Amino acid sequence: MKQTEVETASSGTAPRRSTAGDDESAGMGTHPAAYRIPDGSGPTDPQRPLALPPNTSLEKFKDFIRQIGKIVGTENATVISSDAELEHESYMDPSKAYDMYHITPKECLVSSAVVAPRNVPEVQAIVRLCNDFEIPLWPFSIGRNVGYGGAAPRVTGSVGLDLGRNMNKILEVNTEGAYAFVEPGVTFIDLHDYLVKNNLREKLWIDVPDLGGGSVMGNTIERGVGYTPYGDHWMMHCGMEVVLPDGSLWRSGMGGLPNPNADPNAPPHEQKPNDTWGLFNYGFGPYNDGIFTQSSLGIVVKMGIWLMVNPGGYQSYLITFPKDDDLHAALEIIRPLRVGMVLQNVPTMRHILLDAAVMGDRKSYTTSDELLTDDELDTIAAKLRLGRWNFYGAVYGPKPVRDVMLQVIKGAFLQVPGAKYYEPEDMPDNLVLQTRHNTLQGIPSTTELKWVDWLPNGAHLFFSPIAKVSGDDGVAQYKVTRTRCEEAGFDFIGTFVVGMREMHHIVCIVFNRKDPSSRKRAHWLIRTLIDDAAKRGWGEYRTHLSVMDQIAGTYSFNDHAQMKLNEKIKEALDPKGIISPGKNGIWPKNYRKEDWAVPEE
Amino acid sequence: MKQTEVETASSGTAPRRSTAGDDESAGMGTHPAAYRIPDGSGPTDPQRPLALPPNTSLEKFKDFIRQIGKIVGTENATVISSDAELEHESYMDPSKAYDMYHITPKECLVSSAVVAPRNVPEVQAIVRLCNDFEIPLWPFSIGRNVGYGGAAPRVTGSVGLDLGRNMNKILEVNTEGAYAFVEPGVTFIDLHDYLVKNNLREKLWIDVPDLGGGSVMGNTIERGVGYTPYGDHWMMHCGMEVVLPDGSLWRSGMGGLPNPNADPNAPPHEQKPNDTWGLFNYGFGPYNDGIFTQSSLGIVVKMGIWLMVNPGGYQSYLITFPKDDDLHAALEIIRPLRVGMVLQNVPTMRHILLDAAVMGDRKSYTTSDELLTDDELDTIAAKLRLGRWNFYGAVYGPKPVRDVMLQVIKGAFLQVPGAKYYEPEDMPDNLVLQTRHNTLQGIPSTTELKWVDWLPNGAHLFFSPIAKVSGDDGVAQYKVTRTRCEEAGFDFIGTFVVGMREMHHIVCIVFNRKDPSSRKRAHWLIRTLIDDAAKRGWGEYRTHLSVMDQIAGTYSFNDHAQMKLNEKIKEALDPKGIISPGKNGIWPKNYRKEDWAVPEE
Repeated sequence: MKQTEVETASSGTAPRRSTAGDDESAGMGTHPAAYRIPDGSGPTDPQRPLALPPNTSLEKFKDFIRQIGKIVGTENATVISSDAELEHESYMDPSKAYDMYHITPKECLVSSAVVAPRNVPEVQAIVRLCNDFEIPLWPFSIGRNVGYGGAAPRVTGSVGLDLGRNMNKILEVNTEGAYAFVEPGVTFIDLHDYLVKNNLREKLWIDVPDLGGGSVMGNTIERGVGYTPYGDHWMMHCGMEVVLPDGSLWRSGMGGLPNPNADPNAPPHEQKPNDTWGLFNYGFGPYNDGIFTQSSLGIVVKMGIWLMVNPGGYQSYLITFPKDDDLHAALEIIRPLRVGMVLQNVPTMRHILLDAAVMGDRKSYTTSDELLTDDELDTIAAKLRLGRWNFYGAVYGPKPVRDVMLQVIKGAFLQVPGAKYYEPEDMPDNLVLQTRHNTLQGIPSTTELKWVDWLPNGAHLFFSPIAKVSGDDGVAQYKVTRTRCEEAGFDFIGTFVVGMREMHHIVCIVFNRKDPSSRKRAHWLIRTLIDDAAKRGWGEYRTHLSVMDQIAGTYSFNDHAQMKLNEKIKEALDPKGIISPGKNGIWPKNYRKEDWAVPEE
Repeated sequence: MKQTEVETASSGTAPRRSTAGDDESAGMGTHPAAYRIPDGSGPTDPQRPLALPPNTSLEKFKDFIRQIGKIVGTENATVISSDAELEHESYMDPSKAYDMYHITPKECLVSSAVVAPRNVPEVQAIVRLCNDFEIPLWPFSIGRNVGYGGAAPRVTGSVGLDLGRNMNKILEVNTEGAYAFVEPGVTFIDLHDYLVKNNLREKLWIDVPDLGGGSVMGNTIERGVGYTPYGDHWMMHCGMEVVLPDGSLWRSGMGGLPNPNADPNAPPHEQKPNDTWGLFNYGFGPYNDGIFTQSSLGIVVKMGIWLMVNPGGYQSYLITFPKDDDLHAALEIIRPLRVGMVLQNVPTMRHILLDAAVMGDRKSYTTSDELLTDDELDTIAAKLRLGRWNFYGAVYGPKPVRDVMLQVIKGAFLQVPGAKYYEPEDMPDNLVLQTRHNTLQGIPSTTELKWVDWLPNGAHLFFSPIAKVSGDDGVAQYKVTRTRCEEAGFDFIGTFVVGMREMHHIVCIVFNRKDPSSRKRAHWLIRTLIDDAAKRGWGEYRTHLSVMDQIAGTYSFNDHAQMKLNEKIKEALDPKGIISPGKNGIWPKNYRKEDWAVPEE
């Protein structure tokens, strides 16, 4: 294959596309010292990791691992010592060590070891040990947020803290209060299955994101979203138990008030919590829960989540819009309906290629390697009986309520010429509609994983700016992102996820993970889009490890006042920078951000 | 009058009731040194305050006031130099210096001066000056949260920062996004009037608490509640601008992202904010907004609040329950309806005396000074055509939606024997129902102030524990609180405010503010109730200055882990303890809590 040039986002020009290829030869040996494996002779010692933690000798690391093994059992402490550890490539079984969808050399964001505590005191002991050794930890629940970096750490050589492997219990499902408490390893599928098996699903629903295999807790504290009226997961959390960076244990809100029936001699994490912990978030005094989201300030080990009471009826639907330009009119219709709660949930306006990609790979639609043209998109849409834009919604409640809502919804959207309304029964073969029918009532699946296979060896990266719910804003974001995607040689695939008053615009950058050119173009694309967006006043809500610094840098109001506050709190709670250094651009004082810049491929 | 003994809450016995009296002679001269006026000869110098800030000589104070005057203008810097300054006694015109409903000697919780900045840079300059002088500030917006201490500071001699007097602009009402940005001095009445005057009320509603004269921002950041579907004010905020304890300016969430149309040469507080600041709360990275609620970590100077879109229809109603014991059944009915969103808003279950007190003072119902008996309560209820418990709710939406909801609501509640359903037209003379009809659709009033006049020279104090929505819990809280109220010589007046999954049980302790015995008994009562509640696992959501330390102390899980975290963040952001020392029990390192214990009368 032809070697492409390394270019930075700031150059403003997309890297040239190579012809497709699986060559992995590029990239090795070009990283800064921080990424180097300590012994160039290659890993033969199973206790010698691919990367060491910062400022840590191999001897010290081995001592650390011995002590960790005493805490968690040696079977739960794995040194990442060879490429073999990095070969997991399935969403359901991600590597616990690196970014399976890496856009940088894969050794750049790799753990030195992965440790899986079995209980809260072990988490506390690990945190204390890391403070003693000044070795950074990178906690994750399951590691399946693969569009944002999976389980990989921001600082190469961090110790991955695999919370989900052993801590995966549903601690409580409270049917009267309609909430559950879960450990980090509980997935949306686990929680849903529990409700089904215990005959609770008729009474209580969960809210799920597109893919059900992720951690309920992990998704919520990263502020992920779902699609029922409970789609804002963070808004619907209630109650947190957190191991702080000093190893102490904190409970949020009403959890601070002892339960009179608790055994005062039990260790804190086992003490029966207050009856109102899962009912009322705010407690007394400053409401601190939010600082533990998208955060490096603590390790969440238990969380309460509100469950939605079965609304007494449900009807999902699809409205198709034939023309690319219909996006503007549709968004203008959505805004008043959503804020007026006629649209009761979090609906989505999906670009044709997202749906098409769920139902087939690129090769099933075209034999060409060229970008799909508008005509080809129309052909695909016609083949699938879909529009260029497709709106997936649902109404909730008893029939008279649903009828009123649907009447308004149809009356508004069907004024767009050519728009069509479908219910799932109308399209039994439409895999996306059948899947959304489940998703919008909180039934999890992994069906939509399929769009990642749009390209061979498909991988993805999310670019996710927040948008006003407006035709002008949505169309502008679509134009800028589609244009840049095409400059980078990628078909545009995206969706607008409609929250209460804004949209999470999710651009799905699908690339070939075995093609260095494809990876490089994906990296260029996201870097370029972040700058493009910031210039227009658009900011992202969450991101991949590789561009956390860049996005944090765009939130620059008043000489980076947000970052200064974040750094001050970080310094106060975690003076040695043990937990997730660099996460979301927040660097502890003992790190120099420049030393940890993520290299190009 | 007969002088009563001073007894502490820990003695477990209520202070004896005196016969009514207006004697103010008790209490002076018994305070610890910290509360003494520096010169015993009494205030004659208008620049000599009733109380000096801690560790501040009169000379230093006068220097401080001179410099403050240069910042805000001398007309906006008032030294509290005589009792005359403390004589405001109306809710609508509270003293800016002390607790008009004080339960301790009124000089205990009094400001040395009150300063009213005119803009954000003046707030910043004041904060910097206070850091230089090490003089504490007590910010307030309007000072009308009179049940929790009004505008008075926790530390005697603090400088009151009257944000609302000059900073009272409605900065924006965004009709498309359905939100408003307000300064601290904007009241619920102001905001509602603005909507009416600008013909926006048909489109947008605000949510209001019982009394409309308070600050929208102040209420929200103290986590107050209202009664529409937007009743959780904090949940509905979006966007904050905060002066941090070092005088720097921070904007939350998407406000961190510069607006490309902002003038980069404008001072930060004047820079046009990002278009999505009022649309999406979370931004990128840790979600820090909550740390500025019930907080001493910053001074909020602008805030966005979501407005409710007119739901397309509205019907309020009252359901009366004849017997005291009906509380249990009614709460069991409420729980599933509320969490199931059939009850769409924040309804209230009110004790008969709360309604009775709005419609007349105690003397209009009885000539006796003895506590009202159950028979007498029944007589009052019959006279007012009310129940012993009265449930005020509303349904929202087009008629078919309302009809479905009302059918379920009536079907459930009217199974309680003797329960009756009324709409406002059925009771044109029922002042409470007519008022709630407005309140539940976001029309503010001050009508319900009247219940404070239950006793002569009426004042009040709120005891507000969080309760599970359950018959057992509600009845248990009612029994404990009513019993203690009666022990203290007060009729029980209270209401259960039903949130999504819990109730704010608000016990209204009405006392005679000119009767030292009455004040003392009110103080004993709340202290005793806090301990009673904590023993049963019930915690308060907010409280009066005098008992902040006590309540903070009840949130004691894991050796006061919550307080330790709060203190650590306080120390990091406000090392000199300038802002609101002692608020909600959080003391900066340079204060010893013991020195600031609030004395008995």
